[in-house]
Amino acid sequence: MEKFQQEFIDRWHQIVFNKDLKGLEEIISDKIIFYSPVVFKPKNTKEEALFVLTNVIEVFQDFKYHREFFNGKNLSLEFSANVAGKSLKGIDLIEIDDNGKIINMEVLIRPLSGIIALGEDMNRRFSNAGRETGPLIK
Amino acid sequence: MEKFQQEFIDRWHQIVFNKDLKGLEEIISDKIIFYSPVVFKPKNTKEEALFVLTNVIEVFQDFKYHREFFNGKNLSLEFSANVAGKSLKGIDLIEIDDNGKIINMEVLIRPLSGIIALGEDMNRRFSNAGRETGPLIK
Repeated sequence: MEKFQQEFIDRWHQIVFNKDLKGLEEIISDKIIFYSPVVFKPKNTKEEALFVLTNVIEVFQDFKYHREFFNGKNLSLEFSANVAGKSLKGIDLIEIDDNGKIINMEVLIRPLSGIIALGEDMNRRFSNAGRETGPLIK
Repeated sequence: MEKFQQEFIDRWHQIVFNKDLKGLEEIISDKIIFYSPVVFKPKNTKEEALFVLTNVIEVFQDFKYHREFFNGKNLSLEFSANVAGKSLKGIDLIEIDDNGKIINMEVLIRPLSGIIALGEDMNRRFSNAGRETGPLIK
């Protein structure tokens, strides 16, 4: 692992595990493109990406990071969590810019029961905030 | 990228893109544990893992690998494909042993429409082969 990769991961862990919303806003580039595990179409604004990430931090219980994979400014971070009693695994695919800010983030979740539990909870939060929801499961 | 990582990836690509089922059987360890994108519980036998991978190679259309991420004997490989007209993205999390054989493999897919399309197609194949199917979507 290179020094800038370690520094990014240390900062990212500090933000996620402390639910540091100010730090989250700082580490995300204004140019971020965010791909959710549920919907194909990306979120192309920082405001939307922040809304999703802020809520995901709330929804995930027993959140843990596991293996870390690297390729220069691209990182693949393995995690596990529980949502509404369902165990899930996930990957954060993250690309950072020269300033260590996230410009591209894509989240993948398995298994199907986990992605459905997350999608349902996030749909409620989008709906409660008056935002367009993702695909309805039922 | 280290030499053994490059050698593994070159061999893996050759197997996947040529649908080389003999090569697939050779590159998988007898001790493989395989985690599907749909079901939480892993497949603990090489026979089950081979059945899934052999069929997935058939199901995925326009299969392409993109970014590659490394951490020693652990690799994270980003891909895209189409299944039943649905575009999907995925990650192969692969751990290889000292002989370059896969001992642990976990596949994650996004978005929800993609994982459902894959799950439905694989359920048909499991059912047609007289095997236990995954969770039914409907």
